[in-house]
Amino acid sequence: MTGIDAPPHVFDTAIATEYVGTHHLAGHTCPDYANMVGPFGGVTAAALLRAIEQHPERLGDPLSLTVNFAGPIADGPFEILARPVRTNRTNQHWQLELTQDGAVATTATAVFGLRRDTWSDLELIMPSVPGPDRAVPQEFPEFIAWGRNYDLRFVTGAVPDVAPADDRPGHPDSVSTLWLRDRPARPLDFASLTAMSDAFYPRIFLRRGQYVPAGTISLTIYYHATAGELAAQGSEYLLGTARANRFGHGHFDQNAHLWGHDGTLLATSHQLVYYKG
Amino acid sequence: MTGIDAPPHVFDTAIATEYVGTHHLAGHTCPDYANMVGPFGGVTAAALLRAIEQHPERLGDPLSLTVNFAGPIADGPFEILARPVRTNRTNQHWQLELTQDGAVATTATAVFGLRRDTWSDLELIMPSVPGPDRAVPQEFPEFIAWGRNYDLRFVTGAVPDVAPADDRPGHPDSVSTLWLRDRPARPLDFASLTAMSDAFYPRIFLRRGQYVPAGTISLTIYYHATAGELAAQGSEYLLGTARANRFGHGHFDQNAHLWGHDGTLLATSHQLVYYKG
Repeated sequence: MTGIDAPPHVFDTAIATEYVGTHHLAGHTCPDYANMVGPFGGVTAAALLRAIEQHPERLGDPLSLTVNFAGPIADGPFEILARPVRTNRTNQHWQLELTQDGAVATTATAVFGLRRDTWSDLELIMPSVPGPDRAVPQEFPEFIAWGRNYDLRFVTGAVPDVAPADDRPGHPDSVSTLWLRDRPARPLDFASLTAMSDAFYPRIFLRRGQYVPAGTISLTIYYHATAGELAAQGSEYLLGTARANRFGHGHFDQNAHLWGHDGTLLATSHQLVYYKG
Repeated sequence: MTGIDAPPHVFDTAIATEYVGTHHLAGHTCPDYANMVGPFGGVTAAALLRAIEQHPERLGDPLSLTVNFAGPIADGPFEILARPVRTNRTNQHWQLELTQDGAVATTATAVFGLRRDTWSDLELIMPSVPGPDRAVPQEFPEFIAWGRNYDLRFVTGAVPDVAPADDRPGHPDSVSTLWLRDRPARPLDFASLTAMSDAFYPRIFLRRGQYVPAGTISLTIYYHATAGELAAQGSEYLLGTARANRFGHGHFDQNAHLWGHDGTLLATSHQLVYYKG
C-alpha cells in the first residue's frame, strides 16, 4: 500500500516517540514487537536511534550505537532522555536513557557523523548462497510476537524446534545464514537496519538445540552504509550471518553481519548475551 | 622487581585516579602512554574500567565496556564521573564521563556482573602460529610513546615503515597476528587486558602501507575471561589478531581477539575508526 493515505508501517508505529521537552521524549511499547519478556531489543534500539534522528540538533547519520539493556521494559509508557554531549565539526556524541517510573531500563550511546569520499575497500565479502526464493521461510513460535514482522528465510542454522527435547542434538557450530526483510516489506532505513541487526535469535538456542533463558545485555551496531546505499536497497531482502565466539560462565558474544542484496556490507553488530543452562 | 618496596608498574601509574567524591574521580594523563594526539585510547579505557573496579558499590567483574572518544584529551588533569545507574541481582550497569574543564572528552558505559558455571564452549580457536620466541620484535616509531610499554612480536601484518613512500604497496588484507605483553612484564588483569584490546594499530596503516590520520571513535570490549583465567596467564604473552571488515567514507571497523597462551579466549573487541586518505 502506498500513497499519502496509507497507514504507517507497524514498525514505524512501534518505534515512534514524541519530544515533550528539549531532550525528553515520550513513547509506548507496541504489542506487535513484544518478545518473551518486554519488547524485542531491536525495536528498542531503533526507537532510541529514531529519537536522535528527530532531534533538531542532530548532525549527520548514524555511525555507531551501543545499547545496554539494564532491566526489563514493562508493557506501557516509557520516557527517553537523548542528550548530545559533544558536537564536533564532523561528528556528534550522544548519551541516552530509557526510563519507566524514574527507573533506568536501558542506556545507550551513539555517534552520528558526516561521511565523505575516501579510499575504500570491502574485506568481508558476502557469502555466495542460494537466493531467498530457494531458502525456506521460517516462523518463530507464536509467543515471540516480533518474529511475525520479519520474513526470515534461513540458508543454514534455522531456529530449533520449540518443543523441549532432552535428546535432541545441538548444532556443532553457532552459525546462521539467512535472508531477511520486514513483513510487510518496507524500504530500508537506518532505523530498520538497527532492528534487523538484532533479529538473529540467541546462538545458545542453536548450539543447545532448544530454547533456554537468554537475553541481550549489550548491543553495539556499526553502520557502514551511507544513506544512499540504504535507499538503493529498497525493500529487497538483506543477507545476514550470525555466530558466537565463546560460551561460558553464563554469557556469550554474538556477532552479526548484514549485506544488501547487491553485496554492500551495510552493518556489523556485536552483542553480549546472558544465558542459563 | 617484586616485594612491598617495588615501585608500581608504569601502567598502574598511568591508569591511577582518585575518588574525590562519591562518583567523581580526579586523574592526570601520563606521558609514558601518549599517542600522536592525546593519550593512547587503551589507557583511557583502562582508567575508566579501574575507576569502576575501585568504586565501593561495584558488583562483580567486567562483562562489557564501550568507550566513545568524543574529543581530544589534552595533556594534564581530567575528571571522571562514574555512576552505577542500575544494579540487578547478578549485574550492574554504569555510565561514565571523562571531562576536562567541564567539556566532555570521553563517554563510556560498562556492564559488570557475576559469573557462574554453565554449559560452555569455545568456537573461536586460537590460530596455530610460531611462538613469541620465533616472531620478530617490532617497535613503533618514537613519536608513539605508548608503544614502548608493549612487547609486540608480529607473526603477520607488522607495522609499516613510518617513512612516507607513495610507491610502497599496501597489504592485500588487514590482518595482523601478534604476541604481546606489557613491557616490563606485568601480571594480566582486567585493566591491562582492556588496554591490550586497543593495542592493535589502525588497520588502514596496513592496507595503505603508510601512516595516515586515523583515530578511534568508539571501542567496545567483551570480557570472556573469569578473574581466575586472567590470573592463570601471569605475565605470559597473549596472542592477538585484528582485522577490518569495511573501509569507506572516512570510517572503518576493526575487530580484535585476544587469547591466553593456553588458548583461552580472554577478550574480543570491536572499534569504529575515523581516517583520512
